[in-house]
Amino acid sequence: MIVDPIKIGICGLGTVGYGTYTVLTNNKDEISRRVGRELIVSHIGTRSIKPHQNVGNTRVSNDVFAVAEDPEVDILLELIGGYDVARELVLRAIANGKHVVTANKAMIAVHGNEIFAAARKQNVLVDYEAAVAGGIPIIKAIREGLAANQIEWLAGIINGTGNFILTEMREKGREFADVLKEAQALGYAEADPTFDVEGIDAAHKLTILASIAFGIPLQFEKAYTEGISGITIEDIRYADELGYRIKHLGIARKSDDGVELRVHPTLIADDKLIANVNGVMNAVMVQCDAVGPTMYYGAGAGALPTASAVVADVIDVARSISHPQDSVPALAFQEDSLSDLPVLPIEAVDSAYYLRVQAKDKAGVLSDITEILGDFEINIEAVIQKEPRVHDSEQVLSVIILTDEIREGTMNTAIANIEALDAVSGKVTRIRMDRLE
Amino acid sequence: MIVDPIKIGICGLGTVGYGTYTVLTNNKDEISRRVGRELIVSHIGTRSIKPHQNVGNTRVSNDVFAVAEDPEVDILLELIGGYDVARELVLRAIANGKHVVTANKAMIAVHGNEIFAAARKQNVLVDYEAAVAGGIPIIKAIREGLAANQIEWLAGIINGTGNFILTEMREKGREFADVLKEAQALGYAEADPTFDVEGIDAAHKLTILASIAFGIPLQFEKAYTEGISGITIEDIRYADELGYRIKHLGIARKSDDGVELRVHPTLIADDKLIANVNGVMNAVMVQCDAVGPTMYYGAGAGALPTASAVVADVIDVARSISHPQDSVPALAFQEDSLSDLPVLPIEAVDSAYYLRVQAKDKAGVLSDITEILGDFEINIEAVIQKEPRVHDSEQVLSVIILTDEIREGTMNTAIANIEALDAVSGKVTRIRMDRLE
Repeated sequence: MIVDPIKIGICGLGTVGYGTYTVLTNNKDEISRRVGRELIVSHIGTRSIKPHQNVGNTRVSNDVFAVAEDPEVDILLELIGGYDVARELVLRAIANGKHVVTANKAMIAVHGNEIFAAARKQNVLVDYEAAVAGGIPIIKAIREGLAANQIEWLAGIINGTGNFILTEMREKGREFADVLKEAQALGYAEADPTFDVEGIDAAHKLTILASIAFGIPLQFEKAYTEGISGITIEDIRYADELGYRIKHLGIARKSDDGVELRVHPTLIADDKLIANVNGVMNAVMVQCDAVGPTMYYGAGAGALPTASAVVADVIDVARSISHPQDSVPALAFQEDSLSDLPVLPIEAVDSAYYLRVQAKDKAGVLSDITEILGDFEINIEAVIQKEPRVHDSEQVLSVIILTDEIREGTMNTAIANIEALDAVSGKVTRIRMDRLE
Repeated sequence: MIVDPIKIGICGLGTVGYGTYTVLTNNKDEISRRVGRELIVSHIGTRSIKPHQNVGNTRVSNDVFAVAEDPEVDILLELIGGYDVARELVLRAIANGKHVVTANKAMIAVHGNEIFAAARKQNVLVDYEAAVAGGIPIIKAIREGLAANQIEWLAGIINGTGNFILTEMREKGREFADVLKEAQALGYAEADPTFDVEGIDAAHKLTILASIAFGIPLQFEKAYTEGISGITIEDIRYADELGYRIKHLGIARKSDDGVELRVHPTLIADDKLIANVNGVMNAVMVQCDAVGPTMYYGAGAGALPTASAVVADVIDVARSISHPQDSVPALAFQEDSLSDLPVLPIEAVDSAYYLRVQAKDKAGVLSDITEILGDFEINIEAVIQKEPRVHDSEQVLSVIILTDEIREGTMNTAIANIEALDAVSGKVTRIRMDRLE
């Protein structure tokens, strides 16, 4: 590429900061194919590089403000967290004409109005996809994807720690305090878990979602917050009995009177998709006047999922700097970067299979079938053999087999051999199976 | 606003075309607040205006090409469907320097490479969010939201008709042909259902998803397609027994050898979220190297859901014409358009409730509680009264009540009255309930 690379400064090299460095480095080529320009990390501000961290020969300052003052840096990533220093750092970067990407929900929820006003004045971008629901592109979905709609309400599981605790309580019958300890040991919860379990973290995120959904200023101080520390196994069991799950939801709803902004444990019917979002996963449901309900699901925290959102913002900024009128290529990648990777014929695809074989009731047919599968090194995962029933005055039995993954071409031959068995009647029914893993 | 409005030409006034007109009209103010500029429909190309359609005094031509030739039109919406005329119309609009938004998956899957090349040459945008999964912003999620990632595979329920048929077969034990007839009567399936039930429609959409996920040209002709007409109740039952659901999935997967591009019935484990996407709803799961799995769920068809995606594209184009460097406002709406709608205190919020009351085992306590709720006009949805158990050498019984929606302030007073009953011990446990409707 002839044009200069876009230079990125990372402030804060904790979990998210180093995750972001890792994604920008590992997926460098894929990202360049999408942006049409190289992105390089030119400066890192961090108090210390930990032993497992490798940043090559990237310039490192132990003062994050040195990154904000570096004239080479085009986009500053604020990944230090917290309120005041982060705010000061971002305002400094903006004053110096830099675009900013942040993962800091607390700072945006509390100081966002001031920060966005400063950015407009300096004509720079401040993006914050990673601030809400980690790797789920929910800010983009609401600000852009649903922009045709009047948004009526939204409800989200937007704190993974809380969802992990409630899921464990329900599935294993464990008490709150017990699961909280485990969450802390696993690194899902902080030593001081107040922000997570009392709903403050979720309220930061909900404040942001409500603003972009309804077009109101950020008003974190007005959010109602109630935690999950009072939820007991007993209540979870009674809720189950009535057909409900208890989830820690952030709910924002617009009416003629005003906006509801509230985080609290909530019973939701167990046949709703969002009621079945478990463990540390997040999900946000958005109800709109035109499209109706939509839902967005994924990892709400963690180094790489959060980095995914940070880097998506970096790509947005880089694309809009590089190609302002036509920032996103039609097929996502630059036209001169499309790959000629071939599309495989179905015979060359690996898949697991469900097979249903109809056989005359004859001893040994199951062993004949499994022998054929064995000859082709097709592993069997499960078998059902049903009682024979009478069909056209003959005894017919159904054998159902789930297999492991195998090349489709091989399976075709195995099926032909099975169909050739005397005891087998008609065609074998074959349905592919996917583990989605 | 001082600047000129952006002028939109709608070609095709069928279900989607009129839905789009309706959304642009009904949500005019909300859209202007987001774009910072007025959008008006200045020209409609349609063979006929149906009796229920009202387009005010908008200019109407009965030749869609008149819209492509109209020098006033900034953005042309191709909503006529089909392959050849649509292609010609879009190429004409591009040649005339117009931006294009289309909902036409068939045209994009088959003629997209040619159309995008023409658009690049003329420096105009061609957006197509509505072409895949209706109102779900999946194109935006993959092209932008997940752009930091190497996408490993994606799997989607991307044909609502097929999902409706399989859901009905499983839930009601009905045969394929029977449900298909109903789907046709309901307007979910065409008189010739081949495109839907044989997977051709899904293959069009999958072709598009694979291109933007992996950066390969559109290659519809290489997609493997297998329909659901051979699926029987018997197989659905056996799959259930083994812990699986049968869904008509589009799967695209990248390996070192090539790209898999296939639509076929697929067994998936019933504890996966996507296995529980039922009826006409669509969902797409995307597996990425950094963020892991994410899922997007919503209505895949219908007038207003599809219009939601069409208009989102129109807004994208309008924003990038109007504010190329800073197209999306930080809080989704223009800074001078934020609303001062108040955030309501929790006491002013309506909610349904789960109440758990601990009472001494005393006849009449349930009727005392229900009388109090009745006094406050709080309707009861469900009650569980459990056998008394001994606690601190006293008989204690739990009464669990689900109520209808009521103002929180009212519920607070009712709870205070319940707690004041002699027979009631301690605090009432109260958890809010939400129907998410």
